Amino acid sequence: MKAVQYREVGAAPEVVTVPDPEPGPGQVLLKVTAAGVCHSDIAVMSWPADQFPYSLPLTLGHEGVGTVAALGDGVSGLAVGESVAVYGPWGCGTCIKCAEGKENYCLRAQELGINPPGLGSPGAMAEYMIVDDPRHLVPLGDLDPVQAVPLTDAGLTPYHAIKRSLPKLVPGATAVVIGTGGLGHVAIQLLRAMTAVRVIALDVTDDKLALAREVGAHETVLSDQHAADRIRELTGGIGAQVVLDFVGAPPTVATAGACASIDSDVTIVGIGGGSLPVGFGSLPFSTTVTAPYWGSRSELAEVLDLAHAGAVKVHVETYSLDEAPLAYERLHDGRINGRAVILPHG
Amino acid sequence: MKAVQYREVGAAPEVVTVPDPEPGPGQVLLKVTAAGVCHSDIAVMSWPADQFPYSLPLTLGHEGVGTVAALGDGVSGLAVGESVAVYGPWGCGTCIKCAEGKENYCLRAQELGINPPGLGSPGAMAEYMIVDDPRHLVPLGDLDPVQAVPLTDAGLTPYHAIKRSLPKLVPGATAVVIGTGGLGHVAIQLLRAMTAVRVIALDVTDDKLALAREVGAHETVLSDQHAADRIRELTGGIGAQVVLDFVGAPPTVATAGACASIDSDVTIVGIGGGSLPVGFGSLPFSTTVTAPYWGSRSELAEVLDLAHAGAVKVHVETYSLDEAPLAYERLHDGRINGRAVILPHG
Amino acid sequence: MKAVQYREVGAAPEVVTVPDPEPGPGQVLLKVTAAGVCHSDIAVMSWPADQFPYSLPLTLGHEGVGTVAALGDGVSGLAVGESVAVYGPWGCGTCIKCAEGKENYCLRAQELGINPPGLGSPGAMAEYMIVDDPRHLVPLGDLDPVQAVPLTDAGLTPYHAIKRSLPKLVPGATAVVIGTGGLGHVAIQLLRAMTAVRVIALDVTDDKLALAREVGAHETVLSDQHAADRIRELTGGIGAQVVLDFVGAPPTVATAGACASIDSDVTIVGIGGGSLPVGFGSLPFSTTVTAPYWGSRSELAEVLDLAHAGAVKVHVETYSLDEAPLAYERLHDGRINGRAVILPHG
Amino acid sequence: MKAVQYREVGAAPEVVTVPDPEPGPGQVLLKVTAAGVCHSDIAVMSWPADQFPYSLPLTLGHEGVGTVAALGDGVSGLAVGESVAVYGPWGCGTCIKCAEGKENYCLRAQELGINPPGLGSPGAMAEYMIVDDPRHLVPLGDLDPVQAVPLTDAGLTPYHAIKRSLPKLVPGATAVVIGTGGLGHVAIQLLRAMTAVRVIALDVTDDKLALAREVGAHETVLSDQHAADRIRELTGGIGAQVVLDFVGAPPTVATAGACASIDSDVTIVGIGGGSLPVGFGSLPFSTTVTAPYWGSRSELAEVLDLAHAGAVKVHVETYSLDEAPLAYERLHDGRINGRAVILPHG
Repeated sequence: MKAVQYREVGAAPEVVTVPDPEPGPGQVLLKVTAAGVCHSDIAVMSWPADQFPYSLPLTLGHEGVGTVAALGDGVSGLAVGESVAVYGPWGCGTCIKCAEGKENYCLRAQELGINPPGLGSPGAMAEYMIVDDPRHLVPLGDLDPVQAVPLTDAGLTPYHAIKRSLPKLVPGATAVVIGTGGLGHVAIQLLRAMTAVRVIALDVTDDKLALAREVGAHETVLSDQHAADRIRELTGGIGAQVVLDFVGAPPTVATAGACASIDSDVTIVGIGGGSLPVGFGSLPFSTTVTAPYWGSRSELAEVLDLAHAGAVKVHVETYSLDEAPLAYERLHDGRINGRAVILPHG
Repeated sequence: MKAVQYREVGAAPEVVTVPDPEPGPGQVLLKVTAAGVCHSDIAVMSWPADQFPYSLPLTLGHEGVGTVAALGDGVSGLAVGESVAVYGPWGCGTCIKCAEGKENYCLRAQELGINPPGLGSPGAMAEYMIVDDPRHLVPLGDLDPVQAVPLTDAGLTPYHAIKRSLPKLVPGATAVVIGTGGLGHVAIQLLRAMTAVRVIALDVTDDKLALAREVGAHETVLSDQHAADRIRELTGGIGAQVVLDFVGAPPTVATAGACASIDSDVTIVGIGGGSLPVGFGSLPFSTTVTAPYWGSRSELAEVLDLAHAGAVKVHVETYSLDEAPLAYERLHDGRINGRAVILPHG
Repeated sequence: MKAVQYREVGAAPEVVTVPDPEPGPGQVLLKVTAAGVCHSDIAVMSWPADQFPYSLPLTLGHEGVGTVAALGDGVSGLAVGESVAVYGPWGCGTCIKCAEGKENYCLRAQELGINPPGLGSPGAMAEYMIVDDPRHLVPLGDLDPVQAVPLTDAGLTPYHAIKRSLPKLVPGATAVVIGTGGLGHVAIQLLRAMTAVRVIALDVTDDKLALAREVGAHETVLSDQHAADRIRELTGGIGAQVVLDFVGAPPTVATAGACASIDSDVTIVGIGGGSLPVGFGSLPFSTTVTAPYWGSRSELAEVLDLAHAGAVKVHVETYSLDEAPLAYERLHDGRINGRAVILPHG
Repeated sequence: MKAVQYREVGAAPEVVTVPDPEPGPGQVLLKVTAAGVCHSDIAVMSWPADQFPYSLPLTLGHEGVGTVAALGDGVSGLAVGESVAVYGPWGCGTCIKCAEGKENYCLRAQELGINPPGLGSPGAMAEYMIVDDPRHLVPLGDLDPVQAVPLTDAGLTPYHAIKRSLPKLVPGATAVVIGTGGLGHVAIQLLRAMTAVRVIALDVTDDKLALAREVGAHETVLSDQHAADRIRELTGGIGAQVVLDFVGAPPTVATAGACASIDSDVTIVGIGGGSLPVGFGSLPFSTTVTAPYWGSRSELAEVLDLAHAGAVKVHVETYSLDEAPLAYERLHDGRINGRAVILPHG
């Protein structure tokens, strides 16, 4: 079959022919219907050889949906032909975090060499893929695979970030979304669908802010050194109860801290290299700051339920498998509008 | 191998010889080191033929611990010889409740014909047993199998009941434990180890109340029609914030409701046929009443951690596999002091 | 000043002239701008003399909004002329429940003889009213008093019921609202604004169900003996994660229990005399059943914030103070469409 | 009456005679039975004049207990002679945080000029003190005032820090306490009484670690650059689920971050000038870091309930009011063993 692989550190990904995979005991073979192209792949492919943590070649694609093509020995409860989404942050399934349903925080994944598809294990950017356990599949029903696939990461990650803060997202509260791109513009939709809070979106250009308003932001603020003051003004001096930073760069985390209210949540999702110092007096009292990772399996099911209900939509450009290297190139150059999705079977 | 089976509705369990089981793909074979004898088995064996839900013969034993004897194809992360406890309330592993780590509330178990070992699937009362998935095993470490085995049900069930009420079990609060037998006397120990509440225990005889005090109850009250008044007196008229009824008979659920405070939790664990009516004016405002089932996998790990720390002890009588029918007979006649445990290999 | 009083058990309320009230130390005098007419007043006025708990005459009105007219000695932080809503379930302010911000569950109110305005203390159905403490006032800002006043009970009560179940109201979940009248039709709006769940509304006539759909119910079901089956069908056999019963009569609580899923919440708000028995086997596992009371002060602020945001609207008919007895008569006869509101100053 | 006042920036506190205070409407006059001497007073008295936020002279003492001496107009529900503790972090009582019972996070205190006693308002280090509202008093019952008074800050502050993390303090989890002085040695006792976690205490000398073991720490570790490694070793490589830093200096916050597990809580209570940077990759995933302030009123009641139950004890040295300046001097010089308490009436 054909697969998109990262084969050599520093080189561009290539479309190659690899042996057709077969499911071992307990595994599931998927015919991939759609695979997402993600900024974090670009980041991974920029790492130097001495820090590159995975074996090469690596079939890319940590966002994947497909139809069940074959079941390994001992697998039940799934029907061949069923449409499913792949839950990406695979864990051991048995440690205390996995038992709690938080495989994204598995305590043994590293020790046992368990890696997500496309980030160590062979990924979704191929005609077929192996999923290691049926529990890593969530039924799609009649959801459009192209619409669904970005939700497995670009939907799940903001959903997880929002869910930790639901107790603070009460009517009358304000949520600030910094960065209205892939994850951020989904976050705005999720906040509007799941809560009655006021949403203030921050980004650096007027057309990005226009998009933010279109997908539901009540207010938009240019993300510059005055942004925190402007938010404090809009909130009667109190600040925001929840701040979600999808950029995570030094200036945005500073804004995040500066616009937070007493007893607020600041969540840094973006991997822009910034960090926010927390100590007595450095932030309003009881502001809790954290950097989460991806999301849980039940949260993925909930995100997909939101998509079923029409509550979240991702702007998508589609590409064939052969065009995947081109899609990565365009993403790298900032020329993808929304999310690029690969259709391995056309 | 030898196994203790319930073979005919209405008959006593028998020790029989059955083929040695072999683990299929994804399964684990355990050499059973200890299996618990439980009241609910007696209840199951009292059901009439037309209501009996499982196929016969049925190998008994829903409390089991053992050492890993062999791994089915595709199983990793476990070592042969490792000592493990069996998590009993098996679920499908993929529905939203299983994804949340609450297999005891699996939404598809019935539809898919998934049954706990000893309660539909072949159980632990045999020399060897099959566990359907490695995720249903929790490492025991150096914990004594005889001490550990009753915790998989008689420990896990009260732990789960207590855990839902932790937000109300603050210092200054009162917890009432009705019934100080198998589950109740563990509940008292758990409450003392995990919280700083005052524990009031109720039972029908003085020697049971003496045992309750021995394992940690601060106060004991004879369980009769004056019990609720006595509890209200002991709590300055306010009542108990949490009531756990391990009997669940009509008079005890009435006591449970009558001694509950405003904004309290009443949890009915016992299967004594009682039920407590909830409606406007029937109980203090915001008393929430529920009947839970067994517990979650992460909760089992936590209970075993409490045992490791020496915080919970179960009084145990041991029997060989051949003596299992005798143990059931004694349990039926109320002649077991604490918990009966079968040692299949002596 | 003029006031609407219940003066004699069994008699109709009357408009009478009473002395103008003056605020004592720590109290606030309000000029009432609007007062709500509530079914529970009708219930109170139907109680026989030997069970009537309050002194007579009683100025009615437990839903009130007004402007600050005068401050008693020692009161600060409020400006004369400010528009405020009255938080009704007054508590002692010092017990542990009041300290937690749950005055509606005050442990000492009964002992100290503290009663809500209109339900023991002089109420809002008068030109002026005394509020015992400034903490019982929530700023209205520019919110229309007529729209706001029913929210202090008919909004706050369903809001409180919904809030306890927010952890179960995840995307993909179903909430059932039984009874789409005063409280129920607000509940539907609150669920739509605050969550992304599917809302199924039940009532006994087609035009009530039409209204339910208009205010946001996704599905409506006629409330009869088939209702629970229909809900189970609509939820793929699983049932509803949350059931709110605003009728609380024997048949509706039975439906509530019969349509609940495993691990669900059933909340009985209506005072229709029904109660739902909870015990092992009587309901799906871990269904928690409760009957709450009114709501907390911070919840009232949140409900008013929802109104500010335009997320909840109550259909209102207005009456002068002199017409209040007529409004009660019409309410009693089922001839009020939505909520009747008295305007004491025209 | 006599009072201990800070009268001039940079000068030592003095015992002076001031007019006897009288309670205004809504206020309560206390005869002070005990007042605590706290490190934060030393910090306040070290601030330069241009940053000093309060008016002078300032009667010190933010930890106070007393007996009710007189009630201002309009105060009810309290009896003269009753023994009470003062809840210190006074708020407005009406903002949304105060309504939630979190006066320590009042949103309007600064704007309205509301200050805690001893930190802006006249404090407890006097024969009598004014409490602005009866809700700021918690009944002491027969609790020894000398034992109780340090709990109003040195008990409440760690209690509040622990309470936010209770969901993570499950059996099998590890809590690290950095700094075993005033607050830290109370924290160890609270963790032991309220949870079944393993407690690892860190400090810089062997005798402090011996004290930590005496009050309940399971393990102690010298607080140096190897401490985090040692903790990771003691936790099988996983790290601590909860870290409480009562020092808050740059090296201790670094240790706190370095010994935290995935999905853990790090709480910085100490005001030692350190701060911990949070961002993607800077800490294990989903470590949440916060710096809280004091505690809530219901939490104070719970801490006092723990003291009633004998679960927490503070080592105390007593001084007369005239000796208060000496007590401050000794505290400054590190010569107080435990907590210094002033007895204004001998």
